[in-house]
Amino acid sequence: MAPIVCLLTDFGDSDAYAASMKGVLLSLCPELNLIDITHQIAPQNVLSASYLLYSAWDYFPEATVFICVVDPGVGSERKEIICRLEDKYVVCPDNGTISLLMRMKKQLSCFVLQREAIENIMDRKISSTFHGRDIFAPAAALICNQKQAELMHRQTDPLLIPHVHTENDKKNQLLKGKILHIDGFGNCISAIHKSQLTQPFSRPVELKSQKIKINVINNTFSDVVPGRPVAYWGSMDFLEIGVRNGNASLTLGISQTDEVALSL
Amino acid sequence: MAPIVCLLTDFGDSDAYAASMKGVLLSLCPELNLIDITHQIAPQNVLSASYLLYSAWDYFPEATVFICVVDPGVGSERKEIICRLEDKYVVCPDNGTISLLMRMKKQLSCFVLQREAIENIMDRKISSTFHGRDIFAPAAALICNQKQAELMHRQTDPLLIPHVHTENDKKNQLLKGKILHIDGFGNCISAIHKSQLTQPFSRPVELKSQKIKINVINNTFSDVVPGRPVAYWGSMDFLEIGVRNGNASLTLGISQTDEVALSL
Amino acid sequence: MAPIVCLLTDFGDSDAYAASMKGVLLSLCPELNLIDITHQIAPQNVLSASYLLYSAWDYFPEATVFICVVDPGVGSERKEIICRLEDKYVVCPDNGTISLLMRMKKQLSCFVLQREAIENIMDRKISSTFHGRDIFAPAAALICNQKQAELMHRQTDPLLIPHVHTENDKKNQLLKGKILHIDGFGNCISAIHKSQLTQPFSRPVELKSQKIKINVINNTFSDVVPGRPVAYWGSMDFLEIGVRNGNASLTLGISQTDEVALSL
Repeated sequence: MAPIVCLLTDFGDSDAYAASMKGVLLSLCPELNLIDITHQIAPQNVLSASYLLYSAWDYFPEATVFICVVDPGVGSERKEIICRLEDKYVVCPDNGTISLLMRMKKQLSCFVLQREAIENIMDRKISSTFHGRDIFAPAAALICNQKQAELMHRQTDPLLIPHVHTENDKKNQLLKGKILHIDGFGNCISAIHKSQLTQPFSRPVELKSQKIKINVINNTFSDVVPGRPVAYWGSMDFLEIGVRNGNASLTLGISQTDEVALSL
Repeated sequence: MAPIVCLLTDFGDSDAYAASMKGVLLSLCPELNLIDITHQIAPQNVLSASYLLYSAWDYFPEATVFICVVDPGVGSERKEIICRLEDKYVVCPDNGTISLLMRMKKQLSCFVLQREAIENIMDRKISSTFHGRDIFAPAAALICNQKQAELMHRQTDPLLIPHVHTENDKKNQLLKGKILHIDGFGNCISAIHKSQLTQPFSRPVELKSQKIKINVINNTFSDVVPGRPVAYWGSMDFLEIGVRNGNASLTLGISQTDEVALSL
Repeated sequence: MAPIVCLLTDFGDSDAYAASMKGVLLSLCPELNLIDITHQIAPQNVLSASYLLYSAWDYFPEATVFICVVDPGVGSERKEIICRLEDKYVVCPDNGTISLLMRMKKQLSCFVLQREAIENIMDRKISSTFHGRDIFAPAAALICNQKQAELMHRQTDPLLIPHVHTENDKKNQLLKGKILHIDGFGNCISAIHKSQLTQPFSRPVELKSQKIKINVINNTFSDVVPGRPVAYWGSMDFLEIGVRNGNASLTLGISQTDEVALSL
């Protein structure tokens, strides 16, 4: 069975950047099954990357390797990391990409990625602007060739971006979550996970900056009439705000800087 | 030879939705050749899906499985169907997706897709919002694993969207066709097929809502000067309206609600 | 090891055009590894195609076949060509697509592509509007099946687009290069290659039509403060103009008709 490598970047689909990574991967490990998660993450949106990585993770079989490159700090001093959970791996910059996976998968372990192992197998020098091709693709190929030990000498605590917290207002405890990601339909996916509620929930969902309240968490879009906002537990069990047959982000003016609050 | 699965959705390329489907497919059937037809169908545009499915169908080898998910009714009572022609299959919602294929391929047979067969092989419950991942991807994997009989107990007449008809005006018989699809170049592909004309055609092509007449059906773009509209039999033998080196949809104001008429 | 075929077109990602090509390829050669470089080249932008083809070329292993179809002249008298360098091949229209590869790889040899070899293996006629599916895909499959000799009877000098030259102004020699490609981040990639400078360079980089001067060629984005323009040798060693954490093309008003000049 060919090893699977999943690619997740903000490189877009209009250049040869992702293809060059695939060429490097296939040159080092010819029998790969290469899967694009997406290359359309908004430029430098590490939180979206964090969500999309997590949302694909469980659906891929054992021994899948994920390459996740949303890298505003390329060429600076930020580290590269390699993280493992059972037999799955992800290689990415140490910039918060791993935040949601770390929150949901406590057993994940992280290591500083050893560049020397890559320099040993590549005959080109590492460029200053394209580490996806020059570091992360060869790192993933090393893992597929069972040489991951060469990349993983030193364990590390990765940089994490906080995206959910509780606070008290005058009378209630509030559970607040950032918008992790706005999908292509305009659905707004918050960081509040179903597992954080200990009982079925029936109080209003509030979008803090927008002063919008939604009075109930529904099951799916067709529980409201077309054009109306709906809060529901999405396909990854995070609380989402949508509009039936519409675009919630545009219609309701929700951006990724907004927060969703639940009054507990 | 690895079975081929083609994916055709309106999920866009900026999320992990299509990738999650691929993960499910590879988890159930590791040796697949996964081909994206497109995930950029305009949201909920079932007629475009119908055209794109048909336009790819004949070019793929025997035993290809198509997953076509443009599904405004997800979570409602609409059925899922599985359709077979010789050794090719398509799984899709029963919402008209199959319309053009049914018109052009009379031998296609359709069955209600049995959800029980899927629940038997999946350890997750079916979500309310993402049947591409939770129903259609495992259904396609079952077919690739030669277990399609489990999905196909009850034959059905699928929902069909009418897209071509004849009518009589004062003096002529008119052949009228909807715009099935507007491609990325702006070419407007009508539902009128070359096989509907019994002899070479030389009367004007009329775009009903636009009051545009084109006096001849040409062979290709370079038969007119740059910037001019051109009617021609496209690469699938449907009548198309284009503009040489331009975008017919934008230039001529053609949308998918327009109709093309031929005076017979 | 499955042969690799790379696809590079301006067909976009919203139609079934690229998928139909893949269906033809898999029908003629079932064990292929199909890689999309991009289908998002700006319509008819042959110079971008030329750059993207070159920028992927070296990263793919031996025996890769590239199909590059940006073809404003489809259906007219322009020839199709097949080019070889060692064991890699590219098939494309003879319209300048091969220009940058010819400049950088002197050993490349070009042949008129023999349509007869394709007509012999296809049972459909060649359409007037879709040579990607009807000519270039079967040509690539022939190469993968080791039958390239049938396609390559007559050597030819391909059409080349000039994109770099030197000229003298009042006091200096100027090295001028077109903008080959503007990438998805807005970085503007010029035709000036690092190998054209015989010594490290420290004079201003000038964007001719924009009257912008950049005083030094830096190493990477983080050498300037966010929002500032930066000139640097990009990941393919061409001179690029970027803006740190920004879009140079939009911010600086650079288009593909501009030229970059170095005062030697």
